[in-house]
Amino acid sequence: MESITRVSMNVCPFVKSKSTQALRQLSKNSALTTQARQCPFMAAALNSKREYSSASKPVNATAASAASAASAGNSTYSLKAEQLKANQVDLSSNEHGFDYQGFVNNELNKKRSDKSYRYFNNINRLAKDFPRAHLAEENDKVTVWCSNDYLGMGRNEDTLNAMRKTLDKYGSGAGGTRNIAGHNRHAIKLESELAALHKHEAALVFTEKYGALTFLDEVHAVGMYGPHGAGVAEHLNFDAHLKAGIAKPIDPTVVDRIDMITGTLGKAFGTVGGYVTGKSNLIDWFRSFAPGFIFTTTLPPSIMAGSSASIRYQRSTLQDRILQQKNTRYVKNNFVNLGIPVIPNPSHIVPLLVGNAADAKKASDLLLYKHNIYVQAINFPTVALGEERLRITPTPGHDSKIADQLISAVDDVWNELGLARMGDWANQGGKCGVGSIEEVPHIWTDQQLSLKDSDLNPNVADPIIDSLEVSSGIQV
Amino acid sequence: MESITRVSMNVCPFVKSKSTQALRQLSKNSALTTQARQCPFMAAALNSKREYSSASKPVNATAASAASAASAGNSTYSLKAEQLKANQVDLSSNEHGFDYQGFVNNELNKKRSDKSYRYFNNINRLAKDFPRAHLAEENDKVTVWCSNDYLGMGRNEDTLNAMRKTLDKYGSGAGGTRNIAGHNRHAIKLESELAALHKHEAALVFTEKYGALTFLDEVHAVGMYGPHGAGVAEHLNFDAHLKAGIAKPIDPTVVDRIDMITGTLGKAFGTVGGYVTGKSNLIDWFRSFAPGFIFTTTLPPSIMAGSSASIRYQRSTLQDRILQQKNTRYVKNNFVNLGIPVIPNPSHIVPLLVGNAADAKKASDLLLYKHNIYVQAINFPTVALGEERLRITPTPGHDSKIADQLISAVDDVWNELGLARMGDWANQGGKCGVGSIEEVPHIWTDQQLSLKDSDLNPNVADPIIDSLEVSSGIQV
Repeated sequence: MESITRVSMNVCPFVKSKSTQALRQLSKNSALTTQARQCPFMAAALNSKREYSSASKPVNATAASAASAASAGNSTYSLKAEQLKANQVDLSSNEHGFDYQGFVNNELNKKRSDKSYRYFNNINRLAKDFPRAHLAEENDKVTVWCSNDYLGMGRNEDTLNAMRKTLDKYGSGAGGTRNIAGHNRHAIKLESELAALHKHEAALVFTEKYGALTFLDEVHAVGMYGPHGAGVAEHLNFDAHLKAGIAKPIDPTVVDRIDMITGTLGKAFGTVGGYVTGKSNLIDWFRSFAPGFIFTTTLPPSIMAGSSASIRYQRSTLQDRILQQKNTRYVKNNFVNLGIPVIPNPSHIVPLLVGNAADAKKASDLLLYKHNIYVQAINFPTVALGEERLRITPTPGHDSKIADQLISAVDDVWNELGLARMGDWANQGGKCGVGSIEEVPHIWTDQQLSLKDSDLNPNVADPIIDSLEVSSGIQV
Repeated sequence: MESITRVSMNVCPFVKSKSTQALRQLSKNSALTTQARQCPFMAAALNSKREYSSASKPVNATAASAASAASAGNSTYSLKAEQLKANQVDLSSNEHGFDYQGFVNNELNKKRSDKSYRYFNNINRLAKDFPRAHLAEENDKVTVWCSNDYLGMGRNEDTLNAMRKTLDKYGSGAGGTRNIAGHNRHAIKLESELAALHKHEAALVFTEKYGALTFLDEVHAVGMYGPHGAGVAEHLNFDAHLKAGIAKPIDPTVVDRIDMITGTLGKAFGTVGGYVTGKSNLIDWFRSFAPGFIFTTTLPPSIMAGSSASIRYQRSTLQDRILQQKNTRYVKNNFVNLGIPVIPNPSHIVPLLVGNAADAKKASDLLLYKHNIYVQAINFPTVALGEERLRITPTPGHDSKIADQLISAVDDVWNELGLARMGDWANQGGKCGVGSIEEVPHIWTDQQLSLKDSDLNPNVADPIIDSLEVSSGIQV
C-alpha cells in the first residue's frame, strides 16, 4: 500500500504535508483551503480540525489512543479511564472525517467507462486435478492456462509434504517478526538454500516486497531457466553450471558479476514471498537497515519449509523445465500455423495480441464460459493501451491433449469475435512484433532440451548446505 | 523494500534522480561527481555508464534483457541469438557495477559499535508444546514469552485443520495475483469474514503491507479487544456489540464513524497478511488503484482458509481474550510487587524498562541461556534511545505456573545485572511512566472479565456470511 501513497501524491500535493500543524498553516490561505476541500486527504485533515472542537472529539481521540495503547509494548501511554467510556460520545452526528465518496465514485466510474475496471475471476486451482480449477461451484471446472505456478509446483508432493509436516509441528504462523520470536530454522534453511541456488554468499527472504534496488530481477525466471532453475543468469553459462552442479564453476560466470539477484517464491516455486541474494555484507545491510523487513511478520514456517523443498526438487531435475519449454513451443507453433497473433518472445509465456480492452475481456470470457478454459485478459496499465492481450502460461502439465483443446478454442474465439490474425496485423504494419518476419530465438536451445537428469552433476541430488551466519547475525 | 528506498534517500540525495540522463547531467559538474563517487547508488550509475563502453557491456545488457524477456507476456522483446551466448562475454574483468563494500561495512560497523546491531534468535515454536519452542537443537527448549501470536492461535486445531484441508485440496500457493489466476473462494470468504467482523461494508486482504492511509490501526488489537475480537473500536461499545452479536447494533457505534480499519492476520489470528475494511467504494478504489495489491501474488489458499477459521473461532468465544487479560494482570501485579519496572499501559503487553541497549540484550540473553525463557530485547529504532526494554506478551497458555517461573527468573536477572527497579526510576524522576503514582486503568473492565461464552449472542456461533461483491468486482 505504499503504492497508495504514490497514487495519492499524484492526486493531491497536500498529502505530503503530514503534520496537523503544517496543514493548519496552509489552511489560513483561503485559496489553498478552497482547493484543499476538493481533496479527499486534505479534507479529512481539515474536518478532523473541526472535530477537535465538536462533541465528537472523544470518538476519534479515544479510539486512536486505545488502539495505540494496545501496542504499548513499544511506547508509553497514559489513558484516562473515562476516555474509554463510549457512552459519553455523541454518536448521532452524521459528520464524517473523510469525505471521499464523490472522489472515489468518480475514479471508479472513469475506470468502468474506459473498460479498465478489473473483475477478478474466482479460480480455485485443484492440487489433485492439475491444471484444472473449479469456479464458484465445485462442479464447474475449467482448465487454467494463465497461472504463474509455471511448473505446477503448487501440487508437488515434496513441497506439500514439507508443508504438512511443518504445519503439524510448528503451527500456522511464525508468530512474530524476524527480530521478535519470528526467526527460525525454516528461515535459516530457506536463505541458505537460496544463496546456494544462486551461488551467492547470502540471501534474505521478504514477506514480498522488493524491487527498489533490483540489479537482476529473476522474478519470472527462477525455477524456469538454468540447469538448476537459478534463472537467466545461470542459463547464460549453462554448460559451466551444469558441470559444476551445486558448486561454483572454476572460471568466473555472469552470476559472479551480478551483485544482487531478486527472485520470488510465488511463481515457479509455487508458494509466496520474495528474496534477494548477494554478498554477505550487502545482505546484512538489508537485514539491519530495512524496516520493511525488520518490522514485518515472518512468512509462516510451512511456507518456508515448502519453498525449500520446492527449490531442492527443481535443482535436482531438468525435466519440468524442459517439458514446460516443449509444451510452450507446441502451443506457439500451432497458434502461428493458424495465424493466431503470438507476440514474438524467447520465453516460457505465450502472449496473444488482441489490441483493445473490450475485445480482450470478451475473448477471455468466451474461453471461460463457452470452452471452460481460463486465460486472463491483460489490460492497461499492465500493458500499454492498444497492446491488450491474452497471456498464456503452459506448464509441464499442459500436454498436447489439453493444448489441442486450447488451440481449437482460441481459433473459435478469434472467428467468433472477428479478431485480427497475424496477416491482418502485418497489413497494418505490425504491432508488438506481430507481423514481423524476424525470428526470435529460444532461450533454451534444442541441445539443452535434449538433456536428461543423468546429465546433471550428482552433487545436486541431496546437498548439505551450511546455514548462513548472516541470516541470524550469528553463527548458527 | 520500499523502505530501503527511504533509507537510501536519507543516505544519498542522488537516489531520487533515477534517469540515466539526469545522472549524466549531474556528473558533468565535477564537484558533484566527486561526491557522487562516495555514494553507493550514484557510483553504481556512474560505473554502469563506463561499462557501456567496455567489453563487459554484454554481461549486463544480456542478463537484463534475457531476464526481462522471461516476463515477455507483459511486454515485447526482440533478443538476438548471439546476445545469449555467454562465451563472447569478458568475465575476467574485476570491475564491479556497484562499489558498495566500504559503505556497507561502515554502516554495519556503526551499528555494531552503538549496540543496535540485531542478532536474531532461532526460535522454533512448537504447536503441540505451546508456549515452548526449541532453539537450533530440538532438545534445547525454551518458553516463549514475546511472540505476537497473542492468543496462541498458531496451534489452534480449527485453524490447523482448515489449513491442512486446503493445502491438500488446493495446493501450496495461489499461483497468481488477484487479477491473474490468484483470486479464489478463500480470498472471497476471508474478505467477507473480515467485513463482518468489523461490521463494515467491505474488506481487502493484502499479502503486509498496509499503512499509508491508516485511520484506525487495529494491528495489535484485532482478536484481543471487543466481545468478538474486532478490536478497540468494538471494545468502545462493548455492551452494544455483545448484545447484537454478528449484527450491527441498532444505535450508531464508534465502528460506524471510522471510515477505515487496518488489521493484521499475523498476530492474534496466528497466520500472516494484512487487510483493510471500510465502505464498499473505498475498498473498491484500493482494489482498483493500488498496484501493490494488483501485482502481488495472493496469499496461499491454506493461509487464507486458516485465517477465516481463526476469525470464526475467536468471534464465537470470549475465553481466550479474557484469559489472556487475566494472565497479563497476574504477571504485571507480581512484577510490580517485586519492584520490577513495568511500563504502565492498559494493554495486553508487559513492557519492562531496562534503559539501555547493552543491558537489555544482556537481560534477554541471561533469560534465554540461564533460565530457558525467551523474551526479546527491544532497542532503538523500535523504541527511543534510553527506553530500551523487554517486551513480554502473555497468552492464554501462559498460566500462573509458568508465569511464576518467568517472574522469579526476571527477578534473578534484575539482581544479577543490578538493573534499576521502580524505586530507582522514581528517585531519578521517573521514565516512561515508571515511578509515576498515577494508575493506568485496564481496557478490559472487571465486569467484562467475568463474562461467559453463554453471554454471547448465539448468532455468532456459525453465521452465514454473504460473499462480498467488491472482492471480485462482480456478484459471486
